[in-house]
Amino acid sequence: MSSTQGKTITCKAAIAWEPGKPLSIEEIEVAPPRAHEVRIKIHYTGVCHTDAYTLSGKDPEGAFPIVLGHEGAGIVESIGEGVTNVKVGDHVVALYTPECRECKFCRSGKTNLCGKIRATQGRGVMPDGTSRFSAKGKDLLHFMGTSTFSQYTVVADISVVAITYDVSMEKTCLLGCGITTGYGAAVVTAGIEKGSTVAVFGAGCVGLSVIQGAVKCGASQIIVVDVNAKKEEWGKKFGATHFVNPSKIGDQTIQEKLIEMTDGGLDYTFDCTGNVQVMRAALEACHKGWGQSIVIGVAAAGQEISTRPFQLVTGRVWKGCAFGGIKGRTQLPDLVKDYMEGKLKVDEFITHREPLDQINNAFDQMKAGDCIR
Amino acid sequence: MSSTQGKTITCKAAIAWEPGKPLSIEEIEVAPPRAHEVRIKIHYTGVCHTDAYTLSGKDPEGAFPIVLGHEGAGIVESIGEGVTNVKVGDHVVALYTPECRECKFCRSGKTNLCGKIRATQGRGVMPDGTSRFSAKGKDLLHFMGTSTFSQYTVVADISVVAITYDVSMEKTCLLGCGITTGYGAAVVTAGIEKGSTVAVFGAGCVGLSVIQGAVKCGASQIIVVDVNAKKEEWGKKFGATHFVNPSKIGDQTIQEKLIEMTDGGLDYTFDCTGNVQVMRAALEACHKGWGQSIVIGVAAAGQEISTRPFQLVTGRVWKGCAFGGIKGRTQLPDLVKDYMEGKLKVDEFITHREPLDQINNAFDQMKAGDCIR
Repeated sequence: MSSTQGKTITCKAAIAWEPGKPLSIEEIEVAPPRAHEVRIKIHYTGVCHTDAYTLSGKDPEGAFPIVLGHEGAGIVESIGEGVTNVKVGDHVVALYTPECRECKFCRSGKTNLCGKIRATQGRGVMPDGTSRFSAKGKDLLHFMGTSTFSQYTVVADISVVAITYDVSMEKTCLLGCGITTGYGAAVVTAGIEKGSTVAVFGAGCVGLSVIQGAVKCGASQIIVVDVNAKKEEWGKKFGATHFVNPSKIGDQTIQEKLIEMTDGGLDYTFDCTGNVQVMRAALEACHKGWGQSIVIGVAAAGQEISTRPFQLVTGRVWKGCAFGGIKGRTQLPDLVKDYMEGKLKVDEFITHREPLDQINNAFDQMKAGDCIR
Repeated sequence: MSSTQGKTITCKAAIAWEPGKPLSIEEIEVAPPRAHEVRIKIHYTGVCHTDAYTLSGKDPEGAFPIVLGHEGAGIVESIGEGVTNVKVGDHVVALYTPECRECKFCRSGKTNLCGKIRATQGRGVMPDGTSRFSAKGKDLLHFMGTSTFSQYTVVADISVVAITYDVSMEKTCLLGCGITTGYGAAVVTAGIEKGSTVAVFGAGCVGLSVIQGAVKCGASQIIVVDVNAKKEEWGKKFGATHFVNPSKIGDQTIQEKLIEMTDGGLDYTFDCTGNVQVMRAALEACHKGWGQSIVIGVAAAGQEISTRPFQLVTGRVWKGCAFGGIKGRTQLPDLVKDYMEGKLKVDEFITHREPLDQINNAFDQMKAGDCIR
């Protein structure tokens, strides 16, 4: 039993007081976990474009003040009443896509989206409707049910999974979002068959992980599409076979170029950009009759995707996924196993490391584009 | 052997000389079938909205003069060299979606679209690039590889399937398009599971056949959506459980109404209207996490479908099919069997009958809306 159990912990966190401003490193109070909640000492957190998007104020559902961060790993400090899936001292990864195993969604066998705490998570509060964070006498909102930009956070028990002690949390934290999202999209959502042709639009953490999933599934051709020429080398490092820079193909559209390269189009395409024009190109680059395009990127508010319905009537399929279609509590340990067996690269993604009090630098590095994680 | 074999046949046909004008019943010359072609005496043909669309001149790929019609049944009058799949005297249905069993598409196991004669069929000629029809000394174009608005037509051998003599061709001709398109979309393309909820937008021949497919698959709830109040009775006759008239639901959108009726949305929705706004509603009425929307209707040229990509990221799937995903030569005989065993209604669709020389009346009746077939 830890000496802090049952008590409020005062620690440092990166607070987003208002949109469009840098995060502020300050002391916050983190209340003890209530029933079916878990308090975690965060050891490592990733910084993701979704955090930056909400911080920018462009997300119409973003509210402030808030503790951002949704890609984190740490150690369970204490648990509330009724928690049985993790214990104090467990190494864990926070899950912004929870898994209750009880709701209509979890029981469907068709999706990883869990409905149990969706409404409160969306409003930035714990399932009982209140916050565990305060600073300067004000309650702070939770973010995506995780809020990993704090030395301590509190999450619902269905939003956390225990991971073996054998892997550094510096690595496992990355399985909390980007890597799992891409790898799962390829392996679970698309279910790429051996010998398939694949195109990946956008080679950041998610796109490179799609490539890893495609390699695992035995894809015969993996084309990376990115306007950043440096991503050619990154793509090949992870197993891509070809690279196309859409700004260097003359008068052809990217869909025409890809259809030409693949004798009719791709079996699977993945949008990892969040750009709706790219999503359209990804669909239209699919092979007639069976090509599937998977939307992974998150588009800005109000943006819409379009295409001619003929694209669907002639057999293309447009789908998408969140968190790669992966059920966190059930399937994340398998990804850790893949990592330990050398089937899933994780270390290679870490290009930059910063202590918590330098987190604004981390956002700047991410936006500069040379950084993967 | 028929006395006409090897000779040009002079017979009556409904010729579309130019867009926007009624069809003209005249004598045409139908040349004998060349290698891998079949000449059919057409006994019955259906009239479909696709014929009307091309005749209207709104189809940018429509060309004239042409012999329209793509839903027909008849008897093989003669065959060209190398034809082995049908023989003289066979009762057959013409297939606008051919099945060569040799091309990349046919061999994929993933689609019913066949690529072998796509280019020439699209140009309105036989696979060797020429026409078998002429009138007043002018060559006429073929339509959809079938041209059933003629007493005799010539089709590629891969565009025809032999059917048992035990069923009237008045019935089997309807399996050449509408019924198969709807039934196949439900059974093959969607693969509806037992207990699923289904919504069908547009209750014409195709929509009513989707209902039949949903019934066969054991759907628990089948909602018909149509602005024509008379379609409520039609829907129930074929097995629908509910009817919604979207013009009678007040301020709610149709997707809101359907989500409310089904506690979260439908497992499967089908657009049988060709209206791109309806296609959007059909997608957005799907259940988060797994709902699939199948586009069947053919939209007008230049029209596009749109939605927020969030709809896909949260697990909805947008797909489509042509001819219901049915492989004509392989699977159409199974549908005939379903009909003979009472599992597939066909007779009930026939509301109007006209001789060939009254075919313009048939178009008028179809447009008036009380007619199914």
